[in-house]
Amino acid sequence: MKVLIVGSTALDSIKTPKAENPRLLGGSASHAAVAASFFGPVQLVGVVGQDFPGRYLRLYQRHGIDLAGLQRRPGRTFHWSGEYAANMNQRRTLRTELGVFEQFTPELPPAYRDTPFVLLANIAPGLQHHVLNQMRRPRFVAADTMDLWLKVARSELLRLLRRLDLFVLNDSEAQQLTGEENPLAALPLIHRRGPKYVVIKQGSHGSILSGPHGRFICPAYPLRRVVDPTGAGDSFIGGLMGCLAAARGPVERHLRRAMVFGSVVASFCCEGFGVQRTTRVTRAQIDARVRELEQLTRF
Amino acid sequence: MKVLIVGSTALDSIKTPKAENPRLLGGSASHAAVAASFFGPVQLVGVVGQDFPGRYLRLYQRHGIDLAGLQRRPGRTFHWSGEYAANMNQRRTLRTELGVFEQFTPELPPAYRDTPFVLLANIAPGLQHHVLNQMRRPRFVAADTMDLWLKVARSELLRLLRRLDLFVLNDSEAQQLTGEENPLAALPLIHRRGPKYVVIKQGSHGSILSGPHGRFICPAYPLRRVVDPTGAGDSFIGGLMGCLAAARGPVERHLRRAMVFGSVVASFCCEGFGVQRTTRVTRAQIDARVRELEQLTRF
Repeated sequence: MKVLIVGSTALDSIKTPKAENPRLLGGSASHAAVAASFFGPVQLVGVVGQDFPGRYLRLYQRHGIDLAGLQRRPGRTFHWSGEYAANMNQRRTLRTELGVFEQFTPELPPAYRDTPFVLLANIAPGLQHHVLNQMRRPRFVAADTMDLWLKVARSELLRLLRRLDLFVLNDSEAQQLTGEENPLAALPLIHRRGPKYVVIKQGSHGSILSGPHGRFICPAYPLRRVVDPTGAGDSFIGGLMGCLAAARGPVERHLRRAMVFGSVVASFCCEGFGVQRTTRVTRAQIDARVRELEQLTRF
Repeated sequence: MKVLIVGSTALDSIKTPKAENPRLLGGSASHAAVAASFFGPVQLVGVVGQDFPGRYLRLYQRHGIDLAGLQRRPGRTFHWSGEYAANMNQRRTLRTELGVFEQFTPELPPAYRDTPFVLLANIAPGLQHHVLNQMRRPRFVAADTMDLWLKVARSELLRLLRRLDLFVLNDSEAQQLTGEENPLAALPLIHRRGPKYVVIKQGSHGSILSGPHGRFICPAYPLRRVVDPTGAGDSFIGGLMGCLAAARGPVERHLRRAMVFGSVVASFCCEGFGVQRTTRVTRAQIDARVRELEQLTRF
């Protein structure tokens, strides 16, 4: 089945202690869409400006990503620049230029309104609501967020939680949302806000799923070298949703495996700048790392 | 088979944001010996002073721990006091009084020299060497350490690594030892120093085993509330070694499961001050958490 993905489509200029890469393809929706595309058809909803390179449109297309929902507007594409510290865990935003993103209202092509799987990748909660308002009866809705929205759009985000099947956030966001530093203690407080399933991401330490049938500790694929972690979380949830949409039968049955696939796609994302590594990976390489993770965690 | 455990036997005064507990039973050997005792016979080598409470000796005995190697000397027992920050991850030593520990030389009762499994729990590397020098041909030798020895006794510690089957350390110690912040990158550098097996502990994120047959990602048992993490690492390696010694056949076959058992005993340790929770746990409760971890990690 299809996955609709809405989020940011951006140009990222990323500095790490070892390299500097200007104007990479970035944004939550770009990373998530590329990740999901390994598993089945993807519809992308976003906005880009006149400066958006044609080669990035062709990259989306090579991944079979449906671009009917990608608006092209006069002005400049959303541009983020950031810098990572030596340990790759702390990053600092150097500059954010919203460009055409400032006026963005996601409008769904009529054909998208019946798409069964919806991923509201990281974007303002108001826009996430706006997309959901246009959907007929999606089968499974997941959303990601970021610390900024917890600060500046908290009540809209809390209202969104009631409309979700799955809410994904990282450990520091979980603390920001609930006041609980321990993710295990935060989980029940997040469920109380609405989502049936909650995933708390812990970077290189993997993630935890909590749902009506219990919890799952999902491993991260162990990497010896991280080149650029930008988009890893987006790749995780994109891979997860792509995998879920491709599976048959109840979502519950496939959720754990979908997380592991998401985790593996995220590991590839970290091995290159932007989507450079993810776009060169094959499905067979993804499957091989999933099997490796099986071996690595079996006891 | 039997496990010989040498390390510190101490009184710990521990302050957390919620409580203060003076003169708890502590020390690396105490925690490790209690943890190992759930699986089979344990021999404890250490030293205590005249102020060491009789109830702690009886506690060791209730756990069936052989005390023939526990010296009782005139003077005061090693006393550590420390304080934990709100997140339980950072601790600060308030005071260290070595007492009888200052002059301690571990002398093995003749019957201990043939014990097949040896755990050199955290203690000065010179003393760890001294114990090994007295052993005949142990089947499996594991050692733990701490940041202090990497600073003040680095060359002795490096010499020790060549004598070990298994070396256990936490992620920040691995970085201190190798200069590599990424544990995956640190592992091969540690192997090059000698140990066949290396385990890097990552606190509430579990641990990683590396050995000739590959790696294993060992989960931590997820806890909603940590009361006092003191001794968790000692309980982990104690439980691991106890479990290994109790198993039949090649060590390799049991190492993963032994780590999971160690991880579970460590989780109980964190749920009480000192050994208060660990000493009240039953083997059945340990087994139940191991089964729970199987469920939590299966995909």
